[in-house]
Amino acid sequence: MKRVGIAGATGLVGETLLRLLESSEYEIEDLRLFASQKSAGIMVSFRDQEYEVKELAVDGFQGLEIAFFCLENELAQKFVPAVAKLCPVIDKSSQFRLKDDVPLVVPEVNPGALSGHKNIIANPNCTTIPLVVALNPLHQEFGLKEVFLASYQSVSGAGRAALEQLYYESEFFVLHRQPDTGESPFPVQIVDNVIPQIGAVDESGFSAEEKKTILETKKILGLAELAVNSTCVRVPVTVGHCLAVTCRFEKAVDLAGVRRVLQKAPGVVLKPDREPLTPVVCRQRNEVFVSRVRAGATANDLNLWIVADNLYKGAATNALQIAGLLLKNSEGL
Amino acid sequence: MKRVGIAGATGLVGETLLRLLESSEYEIEDLRLFASQKSAGIMVSFRDQEYEVKELAVDGFQGLEIAFFCLENELAQKFVPAVAKLCPVIDKSSQFRLKDDVPLVVPEVNPGALSGHKNIIANPNCTTIPLVVALNPLHQEFGLKEVFLASYQSVSGAGRAALEQLYYESEFFVLHRQPDTGESPFPVQIVDNVIPQIGAVDESGFSAEEKKTILETKKILGLAELAVNSTCVRVPVTVGHCLAVTCRFEKAVDLAGVRRVLQKAPGVVLKPDREPLTPVVCRQRNEVFVSRVRAGATANDLNLWIVADNLYKGAATNALQIAGLLLKNSEGL
Repeated sequence: MKRVGIAGATGLVGETLLRLLESSEYEIEDLRLFASQKSAGIMVSFRDQEYEVKELAVDGFQGLEIAFFCLENELAQKFVPAVAKLCPVIDKSSQFRLKDDVPLVVPEVNPGALSGHKNIIANPNCTTIPLVVALNPLHQEFGLKEVFLASYQSVSGAGRAALEQLYYESEFFVLHRQPDTGESPFPVQIVDNVIPQIGAVDESGFSAEEKKTILETKKILGLAELAVNSTCVRVPVTVGHCLAVTCRFEKAVDLAGVRRVLQKAPGVVLKPDREPLTPVVCRQRNEVFVSRVRAGATANDLNLWIVADNLYKGAATNALQIAGLLLKNSEGL
Repeated sequence: MKRVGIAGATGLVGETLLRLLESSEYEIEDLRLFASQKSAGIMVSFRDQEYEVKELAVDGFQGLEIAFFCLENELAQKFVPAVAKLCPVIDKSSQFRLKDDVPLVVPEVNPGALSGHKNIIANPNCTTIPLVVALNPLHQEFGLKEVFLASYQSVSGAGRAALEQLYYESEFFVLHRQPDTGESPFPVQIVDNVIPQIGAVDESGFSAEEKKTILETKKILGLAELAVNSTCVRVPVTVGHCLAVTCRFEKAVDLAGVRRVLQKAPGVVLKPDREPLTPVVCRQRNEVFVSRVRAGATANDLNLWIVADNLYKGAATNALQIAGLLLKNSEGL
């Protein structure tokens, strides 16, 4: 990976991706950074050089090996198809994830989905990624039938303004004052609160985030019939998404077998219960952490607690891993 | 209710109970307040009078109509059986909740359980109470088979020191500093974090809180065979417990029917999705709030979001309602 473009380089995910690229072994010879008009002109340092962030334009991607898109749906919709005519695009938006001809890839789970890609590869939702990394190896062993999940999602998943809002409201909180929510990206206060809706709630009552976790999980695992119940909730935490998960399998589960599977599972770190597994533990880590492995209400049930850094494995790490796979596949040709 | 004792009057639940009694219509003629040795001597105001909190002693309850115990298990174990020889005790500890001869009562759900009580009546867990208030009317209509719950429990459920710790750690947070957790009742930082274990985790991997929510729910609903999967999690919120719940019923559920049932359900307030139902909304309210009513992965599944003030309906309100039932029952004799 020598000629790389990042669209959305000034956002939280783009910035994380830059940091990961910086410490990677890739010899980047041509790095081009893009953002929307309002962030264009910002200078960003990368391996002792300064780079100017340019305003996003299709032409800017000419001659690149790979483009990472870390932008909202509207800009992705506008630019990704055109840029994909120039080079493969790994897109973090949800715009293309469920399209039949777009692979939705978590390298530990479905690397084969990349074959025959048409230059748009979708990077899944930041809650879906840790979920499937932990569940896929268990599915291979016990046969997954149902998933019940409740998420505890950090505010960095809603972007930089959301993160700043949490700090801002916390200043009111320590003074025991009602927080000012005037400019907040959230509909109500996020400090001293949890908000049980992420994205718009549609007429059926599901939030956008819940639909993502349900539909993307089925697509990545290749289990169209999987029954998934999902509730997605924002919590006043800066970084790190958590999931309380109950799985129901075809086979009865034995906990020793589950632990054996998780200990060997790629990208998974199984933590003992005596060390509380919290968002703080997962920060700036590329792995998915699992703990609280325990039996469920029936012999086929299993309860798990899953935690991952939503900016790392939930976003930038996964994108970089996809890029690694693409490069390896093209070398193999 | 004229002659009342409160053991644990200086704790968060005891204080809430005092406030509720103060604004009630009960003409309290004899109010006796007790606490452990370290809080004895504190002066507390109640309806323009000052009361000295006495050190807990069995003799102090002589001649009372009712005693509220808002203490930890160890003190409850030591004092409740002796005090119950003098007057009915409504006990907030978990010490007696699962005993066969102790009614575990949520007045909207199982008022009949009080009959034949032996002067110890247990007040359920603060997460269990809102759960059964919302689920019982749905069970009556659709037949409850399974419950999957994940909780978002506030720090006031862990007592006053926990609440102070959240404020203390928040002062570090606003300065972007690592919080001091030296004296914390929590095993790790609670600010900017969620902690996936409440109470001790036993060898089977279940936390004490998870066992309470599972076993108490079955006892209160009278459903010994109910399958309950539970994950209990502490979140950095002062007051208000939330639950993400999936229910599976015997019958297929229709959402209009569910809403009709919840609108009529005693103690329940059904909120529309367009008003995010958060812990802030439920504070100092006696009801259980329900929102995000939506279909599940199968025709027999239902998803709900349940919120209640853990100090009010989750503790003091429920205790006071039990006392009201006791008085009504004894008048009826």
